[in-house]
Amino acid sequence: MYKFNLQIKHLLEHGVRYAPDEEIVYRDLVRYTYKDFEKRVHKLASALEKLGVKKGSKVAVLEWDSHRYLELYFAIPMVGAVLHNVNVRLAPADILYILNHAEDELMFVNKDFLPLIEQAKDKLPLIKNYVVLTDDEMPETTLTDLEYEKLVESGDEKFEFPELEEDTVATLGYTTGTTGKPKGVYFTHRQLVLHTLSLGLFQSAFITDASFTTKDVYMPLTPMFHVHAWGVPYLATLLGAKQVYPGRYEPQMIMKLVLEEKVTFTHCVPTILQMIVNAIPEGVKLPKWKVVIGGAKLPKGLALAAEKKGIIVVAGYGLSETAPVLTIANYNKKVVNLPEDQKFDFKIKTGIPAPLVQLRVVHEDMTDVKPDGKEMGEIVVRTPWLTPEYLKDPEKTEELWRGGWLHTKDVAVVDEYGYVTIKDRLKDVIKSGGEWISSLTLENLLSLHEAVEEAAVIGIPDEKWDERPLALVVLKPEYRDKITEDDLKKHLERYVENGTITKWAIPDSIYFLDSLPKTSVGKIDKKVLRERFRS
Amino acid sequence: MYKFNLQIKHLLEHGVRYAPDEEIVYRDLVRYTYKDFEKRVHKLASALEKLGVKKGSKVAVLEWDSHRYLELYFAIPMVGAVLHNVNVRLAPADILYILNHAEDELMFVNKDFLPLIEQAKDKLPLIKNYVVLTDDEMPETTLTDLEYEKLVESGDEKFEFPELEEDTVATLGYTTGTTGKPKGVYFTHRQLVLHTLSLGLFQSAFITDASFTTKDVYMPLTPMFHVHAWGVPYLATLLGAKQVYPGRYEPQMIMKLVLEEKVTFTHCVPTILQMIVNAIPEGVKLPKWKVVIGGAKLPKGLALAAEKKGIIVVAGYGLSETAPVLTIANYNKKVVNLPEDQKFDFKIKTGIPAPLVQLRVVHEDMTDVKPDGKEMGEIVVRTPWLTPEYLKDPEKTEELWRGGWLHTKDVAVVDEYGYVTIKDRLKDVIKSGGEWISSLTLENLLSLHEAVEEAAVIGIPDEKWDERPLALVVLKPEYRDKITEDDLKKHLERYVENGTITKWAIPDSIYFLDSLPKTSVGKIDKKVLRERFRS
Repeated sequence: MYKFNLQIKHLLEHGVRYAPDEEIVYRDLVRYTYKDFEKRVHKLASALEKLGVKKGSKVAVLEWDSHRYLELYFAIPMVGAVLHNVNVRLAPADILYILNHAEDELMFVNKDFLPLIEQAKDKLPLIKNYVVLTDDEMPETTLTDLEYEKLVESGDEKFEFPELEEDTVATLGYTTGTTGKPKGVYFTHRQLVLHTLSLGLFQSAFITDASFTTKDVYMPLTPMFHVHAWGVPYLATLLGAKQVYPGRYEPQMIMKLVLEEKVTFTHCVPTILQMIVNAIPEGVKLPKWKVVIGGAKLPKGLALAAEKKGIIVVAGYGLSETAPVLTIANYNKKVVNLPEDQKFDFKIKTGIPAPLVQLRVVHEDMTDVKPDGKEMGEIVVRTPWLTPEYLKDPEKTEELWRGGWLHTKDVAVVDEYGYVTIKDRLKDVIKSGGEWISSLTLENLLSLHEAVEEAAVIGIPDEKWDERPLALVVLKPEYRDKITEDDLKKHLERYVENGTITKWAIPDSIYFLDSLPKTSVGKIDKKVLRERFRS
Repeated sequence: MYKFNLQIKHLLEHGVRYAPDEEIVYRDLVRYTYKDFEKRVHKLASALEKLGVKKGSKVAVLEWDSHRYLELYFAIPMVGAVLHNVNVRLAPADILYILNHAEDELMFVNKDFLPLIEQAKDKLPLIKNYVVLTDDEMPETTLTDLEYEKLVESGDEKFEFPELEEDTVATLGYTTGTTGKPKGVYFTHRQLVLHTLSLGLFQSAFITDASFTTKDVYMPLTPMFHVHAWGVPYLATLLGAKQVYPGRYEPQMIMKLVLEEKVTFTHCVPTILQMIVNAIPEGVKLPKWKVVIGGAKLPKGLALAAEKKGIIVVAGYGLSETAPVLTIANYNKKVVNLPEDQKFDFKIKTGIPAPLVQLRVVHEDMTDVKPDGKEMGEIVVRTPWLTPEYLKDPEKTEELWRGGWLHTKDVAVVDEYGYVTIKDRLKDVIKSGGEWISSLTLENLLSLHEAVEEAAVIGIPDEKWDERPLALVVLKPEYRDKITEDDLKKHLERYVENGTITKWAIPDSIYFLDSLPKTSVGKIDKKVLRERFRS
């Protein structure tokens, strides 16, 4: 009996059919049409087969955001192989670990990463072939003499893609947890097609300041190696939208492309947004440029600064484990009718769930929190695009999928309008007397005191209440010995009065330290603090 | 391992979450919110279970377009039963046939159809219960004392819907072919969810004069018993759009609802559009009302007349077998840049395929026609929402699915822009010298001659060319004996000169008749003509 398997090739088919002459642009170097793009994908796929790539073969890609990467996004899964998107920002040892853990057989590697791979070659026994990606001449390398453009040229444009079962694995990535080894997550053709449809519908048929349709011009600023650049390259291709790829992120090139190619839709993390806002001279206002912000909390100050320069921001949320999109801070029908200044606060929240996303915020016993904007719980989800497991890690998989829901380890509240706001990471939240206290909220409030340079809040064991918050504060030099524990507690009490926190959340003790321990990437190392103060 | 089954309940969940306070309206009688709607669906489902409805039970519905019907659209499939949408316009004998063929166990019946069913009751041995739907008091009937509102009231709003496999059959309908018995077609939860996502994306993320988003106000004017009212009630619910149900179609009520409820999106057949255009007084122009037209060719004259009165029309195409949407005459990126008058001609074509629709126009040997707007072939499709078979009819199923593509039996051309235009039904097209000649086109051209009252063109066997066209013409009384075969051939030759038809298409013979045989619904009966002239 008839069965239609959802496959990534259907996304490409529709885009090319709808907009054969639309453009795909790479920096100021390459410009071609969807028709050309499709031809090259066919040639590339044919060349992959000649290189021995089979159904299930893992193919690693280490590349900046480019038209080449987009070609690999389609060609590799469409022959039934697995596209392994390698996070090139990981430590070399981690990159080596994941290449072996994934059992990659073939690697596409940008010339910028050749030194790293040349050095590690002997430790990568499974990789049979390397293909070099470069904007210039083929560089000297002991790895290989295969160059991407020549490889594409060698392929057959009449190559026919096989029909695949929709549960065929299409892509593989690794989470970048702060502790432990990276964990492998993967997604099937079906999952990515459904993710694309839902995301596309959410950003076009619902009310939003960040609409995305075929008329938009798309440029990613979340790297393509990071959870499929949020899945937007697949959506942009389905829509037949103009696409612009910036290569390695350089503020000047980015601004040039935005202005010359008239980019209208982008996504990035707050840090990149900050970089862009800084790069736009005071008084200059861009034409309407919609940017969805994810990966970390979007501070209101930054959002306001961005809008002042013509960048329309909307927050979004997802994980490596979730393909990634779960929520976007689109407007619902209640919120869209609020006054403008109130609406603004909603579009920088974590957001509302996309179609087909079942999202709950739950207590530890899996009962739902009250939607009062205060009661905290963990975000758990079910959607058609979640990693079925952590690759080769049944133990972590069981933890991830406890009770049939994917546990995000993000702690959040839900307000009366249905908007989710993340308050903390699960490991940092303080569980006290059956209630959860957000360490992040307390840290933010403490930081608002003029004397406070840095603050960390951790839970310490308490016989009666399970845990109680302990604040660890570094004062600015000029305030040292002038500010007492009581001063800071009084400061916090003001936020009890206005309802930001409960009286219960005020730490019993505040200790003053000369400095706080940091991790290698400069974040406060709460693990060290806990070890020190919990015993 | 984790599997997310696509289910109709996910459409409802998202709509209610997004727009709990949005309205659903029935005539000037009922008005409630999505929240209320969801509660009633739960109660209805609970009551269904109490009535013995189980997974796989077939439930027949005979009802006009109402909020009640919308509740049944969700509640019946969501308990795992099959919603059988009964075409109440069929002949009583056919209705009886399909109720038994479907093996319906329970029937929801509007009081308007009680006389029909009361009379037939003895011939419906499988139906265990009847529920009466009425806007007024429960009428006297020997069938049952179950009334819909009381039934809903008796249900439990806390009823929990079961998790279903996505391949669970959700709906069942019957095709209304002109010959033979009605044939059963059915669709699963997965198919309807995918149909909804694709249709939603097509009408919001792509360029169209008939956009449909959460901001629209939807009212069907293709009956809900006809291929899920083109699937739009499911989409409208997912979007949380305001919905308006007109009951039995009455021009006055329709116009009242359009104006008072500010309806912006509707779909209907050309006949209904004509009725509406006629109902709008000369000189009156409605505010923007988008209407997608399907079911039959949209004549340009009618389209222009509609637009003059403020109705924005766009053509669409689908079959009972295809859930139904295959194409809509949205703009692609080439066509949208044409001058306005040319664009207009594109939006009344059959259209371009929706996302995930694989559509080909093929010769009998399954090779594709040239996209030149001239070469004719049959439309064959593959999409995720096609009936797997004709119920209990393996022979017709094999014919439908010959070669792994669903055969629409519609003959069409594709132009250089990728737009499909239906030219004929496969059974009426004339196959001559390896080329196909459209009987419909010839009939239309003959009708343009001032002397012609009616014309039919059929293929007659030809030893050399397989078939040749024969035209059968009824002249207007005042022209009889004044017009010759040659006059009409000369008339047709003008259309050869301007490229509308090839010289080859001109019939070798034109016979003049006093009248043409008609079917029971008033269409020209070509079967009779063929029998008479082919031998």
